[in-house]
Amino acid sequence: MVVYLVGAGPGDPDLITLKAVKALENADVVVYDRLANEEILKHAKSAEMIYVGKKAGEHYKKQPEINEILIEQGLKHDVVVRLKGGDPFVFGRGGEEMLALFEKGIDVEFIPGVTSAIGVPTSAGLPVTHRGVATSLTVVTGHEDPTKDNKQVKWDFKADTIIILMGVGLLEENTREIMKYKDPETPVCVIEKGTSPDQRIITGTLKNITENHINTPALVVIGHVVDIYKNALKIRGEDINEG
Amino acid sequence: MVVYLVGAGPGDPDLITLKAVKALENADVVVYDRLANEEILKHAKSAEMIYVGKKAGEHYKKQPEINEILIEQGLKHDVVVRLKGGDPFVFGRGGEEMLALFEKGIDVEFIPGVTSAIGVPTSAGLPVTHRGVATSLTVVTGHEDPTKDNKQVKWDFKADTIIILMGVGLLEENTREIMKYKDPETPVCVIEKGTSPDQRIITGTLKNITENHINTPALVVIGHVVDIYKNALKIRGEDINEG
Repeated sequence: MVVYLVGAGPGDPDLITLKAVKALENADVVVYDRLANEEILKHAKSAEMIYVGKKAGEHYKKQPEINEILIEQGLKHDVVVRLKGGDPFVFGRGGEEMLALFEKGIDVEFIPGVTSAIGVPTSAGLPVTHRGVATSLTVVTGHEDPTKDNKQVKWDFKADTIIILMGVGLLEENTREIMKYKDPETPVCVIEKGTSPDQRIITGTLKNITENHINTPALVVIGHVVDIYKNALKIRGEDINEG
Repeated sequence: MVVYLVGAGPGDPDLITLKAVKALENADVVVYDRLANEEILKHAKSAEMIYVGKKAGEHYKKQPEINEILIEQGLKHDVVVRLKGGDPFVFGRGGEEMLALFEKGIDVEFIPGVTSAIGVPTSAGLPVTHRGVATSLTVVTGHEDPTKDNKQVKWDFKADTIIILMGVGLLEENTREIMKYKDPETPVCVIEKGTSPDQRIITGTLKNITENHINTPALVVIGHVVDIYKNALKIRGEDINEG
């Protein structure tokens, strides 16, 4: 009777941890969201699979429903794996699931994953920190509408690097907001489908990045670390995709 | 002739990725820093090992020397693994090594790791984001003296959660600085030796956390997500270590 909250990493199925693989191998049930790559599920050889992610054109499960499923499975089985993309506590609502399970007396164990916020830029050769350029980084979710009342996200982050997860839908609104606090010429890098064979990288500035057509899922990196990445491409004689 | 910049994860040897294990298995040479757990090196069955981390009481290698070693090994061997704790680009100086290698025409591949900044709190059951509590997080290095001239780190970060890596030595100076911008009663959690069997967790506030004796290495988490962690302990009937 233990539920493992497990991070699946940023997409590439080899970017899962050994600890997550072992948990999947021992699982009686795997409760999983939409994953960038379902190949990861093959480690769960003998488990029942329960999908709780979005489905095109269908009703999808709300958080309280997912909590109920986890409680039901947790009470019934020895080993339940709750598998989430990236890290379970980086915008994964893992905290809510943990509290709901603890309230029913179900044990929870935690297996971190490579968060897309850092794993995607690192895989692409974009250092999120760099001596003399960036000694701090902020990770923020981009899917809160900055024009709504009582908004929680204010965009005057002081960190040298800003990384926006789920940042495509509201990128225009959010970059406009960020330009109130940062130079419009601040370099920006967008990484579409990071760590997958279809990865696409576009660079620009706060002012012009939204002139590009950007597909989801994509991660947005803002700050002068993007110059380090561009400099690395230049040294190698590779093209820089300015959109 | 490729150098893999590889993240070893936060300490627990099972928190390394499959991709990193494969790189180590194929390595001719492994150039490594001080690791929280050297058991990870066992994956490099047939590689020559070059240690470039600190040694007690001895001169240790400066970054330009490490760059030279990487260039020398990269020119000599097919597969070199440069292994770093956490993620290679989160305060790991991986960016400098990448540029130095590219300048010599040596190919570099990047394998992200679970950064301690997120992997350590997640492993401990401390969610770094939580719906309604924290929609942003900042990761910052704590080893810059805030009293020095031309300091790069300013502590008025606006993110809901602040995570300080290498935060023990200057914790008193840094919490004093942060209290200029945040309520002194803001909850703080210190995780010593995270993900290891010797892990120790202490909670408190910005005002009183430094009354505790804290051992290195430790990670500091500041923000109301710490209340979620404490709430979870309370539900389970476990003691909260208030120092």
